[in-house]
Amino acid sequence: MSAGLTVRVVGTGLIGASIGLALSHKGFRVLLTDPSPTAQALAADLGAGVLDDETGADVVLVAAPPDVAATVVADQLKRWPSAVVADVASVKQRVADEVRRLVDPGQLRRYVGSHPMAGRERSGAVAAQADLFEGRTWVVCPQEETDPGAVAMIQDLARATGAAVVTMAADEHDAAVAVVSHVPQLAASVVAAQLRELPEDAVALSGGGIRDVTRIAASDPMLWTQILTGNASAVAPVLARVIEQLTAVARSLEQLAADDSADGVRGAVARLISEGQLGHARIPGKHGSAPATYATVIVPIPDEPGSFARLFNDVGDAGINLEDLRMEHGVGAMVGLVELSVLPAAVDRLREVLEHKGWSVHE
Amino acid sequence: MSAGLTVRVVGTGLIGASIGLALSHKGFRVLLTDPSPTAQALAADLGAGVLDDETGADVVLVAAPPDVAATVVADQLKRWPSAVVADVASVKQRVADEVRRLVDPGQLRRYVGSHPMAGRERSGAVAAQADLFEGRTWVVCPQEETDPGAVAMIQDLARATGAAVVTMAADEHDAAVAVVSHVPQLAASVVAAQLRELPEDAVALSGGGIRDVTRIAASDPMLWTQILTGNASAVAPVLARVIEQLTAVARSLEQLAADDSADGVRGAVARLISEGQLGHARIPGKHGSAPATYATVIVPIPDEPGSFARLFNDVGDAGINLEDLRMEHGVGAMVGLVELSVLPAAVDRLREVLEHKGWSVHE
Repeated sequence: MSAGLTVRVVGTGLIGASIGLALSHKGFRVLLTDPSPTAQALAADLGAGVLDDETGADVVLVAAPPDVAATVVADQLKRWPSAVVADVASVKQRVADEVRRLVDPGQLRRYVGSHPMAGRERSGAVAAQADLFEGRTWVVCPQEETDPGAVAMIQDLARATGAAVVTMAADEHDAAVAVVSHVPQLAASVVAAQLRELPEDAVALSGGGIRDVTRIAASDPMLWTQILTGNASAVAPVLARVIEQLTAVARSLEQLAADDSADGVRGAVARLISEGQLGHARIPGKHGSAPATYATVIVPIPDEPGSFARLFNDVGDAGINLEDLRMEHGVGAMVGLVELSVLPAAVDRLREVLEHKGWSVHE
Repeated sequence: MSAGLTVRVVGTGLIGASIGLALSHKGFRVLLTDPSPTAQALAADLGAGVLDDETGADVVLVAAPPDVAATVVADQLKRWPSAVVADVASVKQRVADEVRRLVDPGQLRRYVGSHPMAGRERSGAVAAQADLFEGRTWVVCPQEETDPGAVAMIQDLARATGAAVVTMAADEHDAAVAVVSHVPQLAASVVAAQLRELPEDAVALSGGGIRDVTRIAASDPMLWTQILTGNASAVAPVLARVIEQLTAVARSLEQLAADDSADGVRGAVARLISEGQLGHARIPGKHGSAPATYATVIVPIPDEPGSFARLFNDVGDAGINLEDLRMEHGVGAMVGLVELSVLPAAVDRLREVLEHKGWSVHE
């Protein structure tokens, strides 16, 4: 897609402003508009584009909250009769259904649903960044009626922001995100919610496990209420299965709590943990490739300036590429544990180099 | 506690062998015994101690699987009438109750329950490491009958491995770990289990959220079945609350799926996400201190050897201490995003230094 096209971004929150920044950097002309004059001016000041001058645009990207996305899409389709109009809401079927109700059938040819899978705990234009989409997945969901040229236009725009484009039907998208995003959000929230009434001494035993499980529980309740209720019909059956499986485990545990020699009740627990292990193994590795088994080593490092520098310097000197890293903190000790993942073929050399440099290396 | 004491470690798997390594390094005499002659010999070869010569020991640490821990503790209390005997199982009340059934009341004075909160995805002596407990929490749970001197002895031993000791009653421990460890494990497993039947295209949309939520789903099903069933009476009520709260959300979503203009049903969803946000905020920060709000910046780095070295070198040159770091990979792009957390006072300088060195820095 040739830069030089004009793109109108409607809604200059985190996602809209980040799109504006990314496309402006690539030479697109970006017009910005938002119901809030302050939000709109802020996005323009940050370099996301220029204030909307009400001239025509080749493409309109609607980055409004999920609950109003369809109305805004319909308005834009009517107002700009030759523009391609796309939304970026994280729920796709419901938005498409509403758009279909609101516009003439012919106008659907210019509508493309899409979902850039990027976000942050912070919101608003002030948190926007030109590379928010770099390396992230941007799902494009054409309707049956959508013109192939319109689809290609949005795919190209998504790629221009640095995203990797995946194309699928809206209902497939919604079913997928129900499992890989929406139900995990509920699980994280419900686990974290149990901490509210817990005594301080008990909360203090929280380790790396619960931290990981609940990290996304810090997300914005308003946005997530919109997402979950907007995808209700895809989330509900997955959540029902989750509840059913947890209930089977709960029944076993209740029987054991009443009579710890109860027979035949351990199977339900073992089954869930085993199925979780098998499901977890399907999550793709880095860069969307097949799950990779990296070799990992753990290196304790002192909690002082320069420790990381020394460690990664020593790794870098060896010409070894780190595939992943994870840090864990201990409780009550001024030491951190860094877990380094490398390709299996490189692990011996990594260990050798680090030990030679005086690091303590653990598998 | 003076090194030079003799400690018998019964069970030379990951935990037992790691304790042996840690205590041997500190100058304790460690005797190793395991029902498997191979496991026992391997631990000795790795330097975790010497093969048990059946001489007396001052302390016996029972590192047997949770389901046999109590029997082994009782045997050791009878066999060595002057030794302090402690177990390291992750469930405490049930083990204590069983020990109480198996020994004379007087022998309970020498029994101390304990739980070093450390583990790994790998198991066995071959995965043992001397610093496994460094900076981790080691919970000590005395019984009413336990002699204070025996408690102090185990607390000192735990500290000698580098762990931070927390002392609480067995039932408090079990209630705490039900919330901060056992139910999170079930949540991670049940979310991961939903991936088993998902089409490949859908699994490919997995992002950082589900990866974090399900990381611990990779754990050993056999061990976790023992832990969860061993703590059934503490886990069951927490799991019941989780199911109840998820069921309230499921009902709302089902109503919305049937009629998307249904009123008064969004509250249940918003409530759970909000309570999760509040619960999550209680998780302590680094080193068991009060939750700290760090300032974070995100730096994209190229996927090539030496990138980390350059980045952390530049951070180190500035004399800034990293409080935490996290890495995220994009899909389909050869770039990684590193999130650096520092004290708020240091973030301006961090940004300045990194930008000066040519890094792209995002908040």
